[in-house]
Amino acid sequence: MAHISVPPEIPGIRSLAIFRPETGKPLYELVQVLLRQESTLSPAERELIAAYVSSLNQCRFCADSHAATARVLFGQNQEVVNQVLHQPEVASVGPKLKALLGIAEKVQRSGKAVTPDAIGRARKEGASDLEIHDTVLIAATFCMFNRYVDGLATWTPADPEMYKEMGQRLANKGYTLNINN
Amino acid sequence: MAHISVPPEIPGIRSLAIFRPETGKPLYELVQVLLRQESTLSPAERELIAAYVSSLNQCRFCADSHAATARVLFGQNQEVVNQVLHQPEVASVGPKLKALLGIAEKVQRSGKAVTPDAIGRARKEGASDLEIHDTVLIAATFCMFNRYVDGLATWTPADPEMYKEMGQRLANKGYTLNINN
Repeated sequence: MAHISVPPEIPGIRSLAIFRPETGKPLYELVQVLLRQESTLSPAERELIAAYVSSLNQCRFCADSHAATARVLFGQNQEVVNQVLHQPEVASVGPKLKALLGIAEKVQRSGKAVTPDAIGRARKEGASDLEIHDTVLIAATFCMFNRYVDGLATWTPADPEMYKEMGQRLANKGYTLNINN
Repeated sequence: MAHISVPPEIPGIRSLAIFRPETGKPLYELVQVLLRQESTLSPAERELIAAYVSSLNQCRFCADSHAATARVLFGQNQEVVNQVLHQPEVASVGPKLKALLGIAEKVQRSGKAVTPDAIGRARKEGASDLEIHDTVLIAATFCMFNRYVDGLATWTPADPEMYKEMGQRLANKGYTLNINN
């Protein structure tokens, strides 16, 4: 049971956005820009960074829902999602994305853990300032969401089918806050 | 020097909001709601939670700027700011705020560290669901800002006078994103 009186039968972040729409609105706007707005990183790549950081934070709701979304978006290449979550160093992703995942892993520990070397590696693989910026902010943002969702003990569904449905919806519709459903 | 080409001579989060206003806008909106909107927790108390979490994350820019803001807002009682940052358990703050700071400290480590006992203690001291919610989200939000600011190695001024000025401005004007200054 959640630590506060959020609406029942609504999982994770959605229950909190309904409880407090004044904060839910900018949070949904932020994630829509970060994960869906036009970018040289695909939505699949950005969802993967979100799932990876959430997995490192052991936030099951965020990790499973964003992994499910990344699987839908990667389509035929969806096996990379499990690879990144379980063996990131040998995952078959390109060198630029691998370097960005390396930065995200450091951000998950601490902002101060991001070294000039880690940035240099990403830049050498072709990462732009904007891609580095967005990777750091996606990782930092999920360090927030993971703490928010778990810190208030919101409902984490156990049924894998629910995550598949969430993944389909988030892949197709993105992040829009409709507090009526 | 920052890891990416942010505008020079602009410190911390402000340089990042100017670099990427699409994400700066919802971030400033979020922090304005959390730290300034009408609430049963005073702006001083909420700035103190932000400074405390930033101090635990060793993010000097966020810790010093929000501590400076809290000092202005606490006025004659401003010594509580140093007490909370250096000896929180014996700080002369009321029992409700002390319990909420205890929750914030757990969120800083992990969302999963927030126990029913910690929530129960806050509730026993009179904390409402909304106060508990906002405490968790303020703490989680600063875990994001701290990682964002330090992860991109933005400029952290060394001059204490600059933090005093920032504190005055943030205490009086709150969080508005004007990318022209």
